[in-house]
Amino acid sequence: MKALAASRCYTGSIQVRFGDVDRAGIVYYPRIFDYFHQVFEGFFEDCMGIPYPEVIGGRLRAGFPAVHYEVDFLSPLNYGDRLPVRLTVARIGRTSVTFRYEVFRGKKLLVRALGTTVCVDMKTFRPKPLPLRLRQVLERILETRPAW
Amino acid sequence: MKALAASRCYTGSIQVRFGDVDRAGIVYYPRIFDYFHQVFEGFFEDCMGIPYPEVIGGRLRAGFPAVHYEVDFLSPLNYGDRLPVRLTVARIGRTSVTFRYEVFRGKKLLVRALGTTVCVDMKTFRPKPLPLRLRQVLERILETRPAW
Amino acid sequence: MKALAASRCYTGSIQVRFGDVDRAGIVYYPRIFDYFHQVFEGFFEDCMGIPYPEVIGGRLRAGFPAVHYEVDFLSPLNYGDRLPVRLTVARIGRTSVTFRYEVFRGKKLLVRALGTTVCVDMKTFRPKPLPLRLRQVLERILETRPAW
Amino acid sequence: MKALAASRCYTGSIQVRFGDVDRAGIVYYPRIFDYFHQVFEGFFEDCMGIPYPEVIGGRLRAGFPAVHYEVDFLSPLNYGDRLPVRLTVARIGRTSVTFRYEVFRGKKLLVRALGTTVCVDMKTFRPKPLPLRLRQVLERILETRPAW
Repeated sequence: MKALAASRCYTGSIQVRFGDVDRAGIVYYPRIFDYFHQVFEGFFEDCMGIPYPEVIGGRLRAGFPAVHYEVDFLSPLNYGDRLPVRLTVARIGRTSVTFRYEVFRGKKLLVRALGTTVCVDMKTFRPKPLPLRLRQVLERILETRPAW
Repeated sequence: MKALAASRCYTGSIQVRFGDVDRAGIVYYPRIFDYFHQVFEGFFEDCMGIPYPEVIGGRLRAGFPAVHYEVDFLSPLNYGDRLPVRLTVARIGRTSVTFRYEVFRGKKLLVRALGTTVCVDMKTFRPKPLPLRLRQVLERILETRPAW
Repeated sequence: MKALAASRCYTGSIQVRFGDVDRAGIVYYPRIFDYFHQVFEGFFEDCMGIPYPEVIGGRLRAGFPAVHYEVDFLSPLNYGDRLPVRLTVARIGRTSVTFRYEVFRGKKLLVRALGTTVCVDMKTFRPKPLPLRLRQVLERILETRPAW
Repeated sequence: MKALAASRCYTGSIQVRFGDVDRAGIVYYPRIFDYFHQVFEGFFEDCMGIPYPEVIGGRLRAGFPAVHYEVDFLSPLNYGDRLPVRLTVARIGRTSVTFRYEVFRGKKLLVRALGTTVCVDMKTFRPKPLPLRLRQVLERILETRPAW
């Protein structure tokens, strides 16, 4: 978590699987949103110490459906790629949070995205305030630079 | 095609399958980009008269990778939903085109998106001008209203 | 249903989508099990008159998890293929049913499978007898020939 | 590799992701074939020292389409599960190989499968003899016990 504090980001990683690639040999873009979700799940587990299944199933009683996405696909992802994904927080609202995802190959930015999710009660599916502990962790990777 | 000319849109349809739904019983959002692609394929077949497999495999020698997406997930899609998707063109560039997708249940707008694809040569993967015939068909569903 | 009675089979259809195809241009085989599920859902709707979402969500209170599968992939499915899938019942048990799926292109058999599902209570997830009405419909497409 | 020789198996691992789970909260069974493919890819990389993308794209010029599968789904896989998958070889033919996959949670066997793939030339898609080096590695995890 010290690393988190220093770098002000969480870094997940993804691997491009055979089933993710289209006949042109590059990742079929809907799969990239799967990758984002994997990184999002990893963030909960690694930074919150709560596996995401427990987040939605139990302890936090919260779900995080996506409500908005903006994505730039700058360069294709290839089969076999193992790529770091940089995760930061662009905005924290009362019930929502906007994550920024950046997929790199070396120094080359391949995909960048802003994804907003709303915290909802898993029973009623109505928005509810972000849990305090989550908010604290989110603030550690909150960006200070302005959003692109 | 007459209908197309009159309505200035193409209407595809989607069906929410068992495998598209998450444990909360609603569509897992990456699948929605699959739906967009299905509508996009349907547009080529129904309005161009060219099945999309032939577009990329043969006649047009063109591929259309996504380069940008903006999406609002306004309301969940449920298992079993069969929904119309309204497709219009928001912008036609020299090598790119921006489609607008709107998913409805009755009069309720559930999802709206702007997706930009670039026309590329399937061998070199470099951008090339939109084929003339495609451009003509795209113009028939080009929006006159300003984009949201 | 008369047609059903005469032919002793149900015929669904599938369409090979862009996202189903691998970099070799043929269907990535795990997707074929998605196709089977689509045909299975179609059977409930067309022959039982109950959309599958209502089967699991409400009226029948039943789920049908797969417990066994045997599949022969005889020939590849290609992008753009729209193929009939012949569905018959190879065996009806007390709590389980074995379906036979046969995917054709013209007269050529591309894939054949035997898939066994067990009827379970959706709350307890324990096996329960096949609902009488389902059993009656299953019997109409029960095979008289021996299984391969 | 010493470990391989001793245990006569390769052990991969899988993780059940949010997008793999159905509305009943268990893995939608077609995804399990994706897991098998992941383990299969891991085997090539870890035991052959050749990442699978290079197998099909380059060095071996070989593809391995599935031709037959038999699977028993004995117990459900849950969201969040991280499970070992034991891989052995049940049979080595001239152009084909039959793998056995066994997915465990602790000592409990959840899924077992026999999957046969044929080695094909990636250009002609016709069967060709298994590469010698692959055959040698396969033999290290060849079963001595009879198949179930």
